Amino acid sequence: MTDYPGFGFEVLVADAASRARLGRLTTPHGPLMTPAFIFCATRGAIKAAGPAELRAANADIILANTYHMMLQPGADIVEKMGGLHRFMGWSGPMLTDSGGFQIFSLGHGSVSEEIKSKGAKGNRAPLLIELAEEGATFRSPRDGQRHTLTPGSSIRIQQKLGADLIVVLDECTPFHVDRDYTATSLAMTNRWAERCIAEFERGHDGRQALYGVIQGGVYEDLRHESAEFVSSKPFFGHAVGGCLGDHEEQMYDIVEYSMGPLDRARPVHLLGIGGIKDIWAGVELGIDTFDCVTPTRIARHGWALARDGRDHRRNMRNARYREDPEPLEPGCGCPVCSTYSRAYIHHLLKAGEILGLQLLTQHNIAFMTGLMATIRGALEKGRLAEAKAEWFKA
Amino acid sequence: MTDYPGFGFEVLVADAASRARLGRLTTPHGPLMTPAFIFCATRGAIKAAGPAELRAANADIILANTYHMMLQPGADIVEKMGGLHRFMGWSGPMLTDSGGFQIFSLGHGSVSEEIKSKGAKGNRAPLLIELAEEGATFRSPRDGQRHTLTPGSSIRIQQKLGADLIVVLDECTPFHVDRDYTATSLAMTNRWAERCIAEFERGHDGRQALYGVIQGGVYEDLRHESAEFVSSKPFFGHAVGGCLGDHEEQMYDIVEYSMGPLDRARPVHLLGIGGIKDIWAGVELGIDTFDCVTPTRIARHGWALARDGRDHRRNMRNARYREDPEPLEPGCGCPVCSTYSRAYIHHLLKAGEILGLQLLTQHNIAFMTGLMATIRGALEKGRLAEAKAEWFKA
Repeated sequence: MTDYPGFGFEVLVADAASRARLGRLTTPHGPLMTPAFIFCATRGAIKAAGPAELRAANADIILANTYHMMLQPGADIVEKMGGLHRFMGWSGPMLTDSGGFQIFSLGHGSVSEEIKSKGAKGNRAPLLIELAEEGATFRSPRDGQRHTLTPGSSIRIQQKLGADLIVVLDECTPFHVDRDYTATSLAMTNRWAERCIAEFERGHDGRQALYGVIQGGVYEDLRHESAEFVSSKPFFGHAVGGCLGDHEEQMYDIVEYSMGPLDRARPVHLLGIGGIKDIWAGVELGIDTFDCVTPTRIARHGWALARDGRDHRRNMRNARYREDPEPLEPGCGCPVCSTYSRAYIHHLLKAGEILGLQLLTQHNIAFMTGLMATIRGALEKGRLAEAKAEWFKA
Repeated sequence: MTDYPGFGFEVLVADAASRARLGRLTTPHGPLMTPAFIFCATRGAIKAAGPAELRAANADIILANTYHMMLQPGADIVEKMGGLHRFMGWSGPMLTDSGGFQIFSLGHGSVSEEIKSKGAKGNRAPLLIELAEEGATFRSPRDGQRHTLTPGSSIRIQQKLGADLIVVLDECTPFHVDRDYTATSLAMTNRWAERCIAEFERGHDGRQALYGVIQGGVYEDLRHESAEFVSSKPFFGHAVGGCLGDHEEQMYDIVEYSMGPLDRARPVHLLGIGGIKDIWAGVELGIDTFDCVTPTRIARHGWALARDGRDHRRNMRNARYREDPEPLEPGCGCPVCSTYSRAYIHHLLKAGEILGLQLLTQHNIAFMTGLMATIRGALEKGRLAEAKAEWFKA
């Protein structure tokens, strides 16, 4: 049985009306309170923000993507430089994913604009050449080179990167596949999980903890089967992955299917979901951590997260902000809102200044950490439902 | 006689072997020690760095460009938002130029890649339509609209922007013009200076101090005439402007022509010059402050300033830095050098991460403030010549 002595997960308060819980997740790089949001440092850097900006915005935990890091600069260089924490100057908790999402979800041709970043150099989707029991072979969009990612190599790469929380390689099935394909895929994903555990245990030095992934597409029985499987394995935590349906109600159903049979003593991560409504819903379904590129990505397109904006965001390029002396979000208190006006941010965007993206990024990070703090405060006081109603009334 | 009660300039140490001096320049937004470097926040933002990064890199003073600010967002909006200091969150000393350089030097068709920023949106050169005694009419490259900049309007704009140090409008003659054109131009520049002084005194509330500009092209007698003229006027400080020759020796000659008859009790700024060698030479010629876009501009092209690099810079995209665990500049001690390796910066550039430009920008600012601190330290100890020799031996 794998042991995680430097890690812990403690449920401090369980909500009476839902599966939501307030928790404390401990890692060798410090603890974090949950529910928490994990910010995406895809290529070993939060886009347009360094560790100082993250800390000032109260970010607790970040993630990097194995797929991107294995291609540039490569796991060996990161290991030589002392691991990803030291390489990127981040001393807090960190997660890496397995690379599966990028290879399968993108390689299969399904849509994920968030990760594809169309047009950015080296940011195109990989081409999946072969999927076999051994692993997946794909062509790098950077230089056309062939790479094979196996359960073993994914874990070895993640061990070299050195994040606190690492994730098994899974086949991430696209939305359009049928039940038979999904069932066959899930069986292989489970065999891959066994190989990941074996590889993890070979290199395990107590500095990392392993997450198992729940797949099973949109099918309730397969999601149950997957949740039971991962619960039976010596994982530290679980991640709900895969295609999560084509509208939010279906996503919530799938999360619920996945959560049902899960071992509740372990932390649960929801992969790639970070809409404001989805976070409130996910928390109620029992999710402890979330990640998504949206908060930092929309910042680079000129959007500020805002409680009272449409879809909880404001387009700061809009001429209505030209002479607006208010901060991005009144009452926010983040370093950006305590210093700058909407008029200044608007000016920076109109003038094409990089600083505009930097300031919006920092605000959006602070907005997300503030949202999670609001949720945790409500859980502590036993008033999650009221807090949710207040949030959406605002 | 114009009075500058909130301002002061004190020469603390005069070098025995050159015209160099250690000084203290006092403004309503605080004092700064000279020689000092002024960082360019052309459009009201240092490119890829906010005030927090500037302070962490020990920057004392910044400048913004009147030409850019009058077109976007416009001086009235900046004034409504409480002035440029408050608008951009910078609480230290600030200078604005007059707009003349952009309109004349660029409009005349001479080359200034630094300001033109070819290809950047709204960053093209203005088209000079008419130059008359009244002022200059040009077409904005942003939207094609006609604007007229006069000595009076340049000062009024700068009063609205609210920088501590402001500069008279001058005709900045291009390199290729002959002595007759230059003499006629200088005469008009001097008449404009009188109009600027009159306008300045109308709105003077003690928060700003006015600099006169020395023109006269490459001609020693005209430079002398110009320096005598500005010295006879109630300026707080002087700026050496215009075309400074086509090679560094000629530039040093022109600076020397300009400095000769100047009132030595006033601070002297050298407009748009910031090469490492040029700064050492300028200091010896008696220059107190410098400005240039180069340190932050080359950062955005992947270059780190470095004592021992060729031309005092290193191309961090170079593959030699792929596995280099050293900081950008050993011994630098700036926030970037105390956290990150060359390998990480190289990775960020290869991965196209904005953070790479942010970190190089902050380092290059710290490098320049460190250079100026070295120069001031040497002046204090009476060993400027030795310090210069050591610098270039390194």
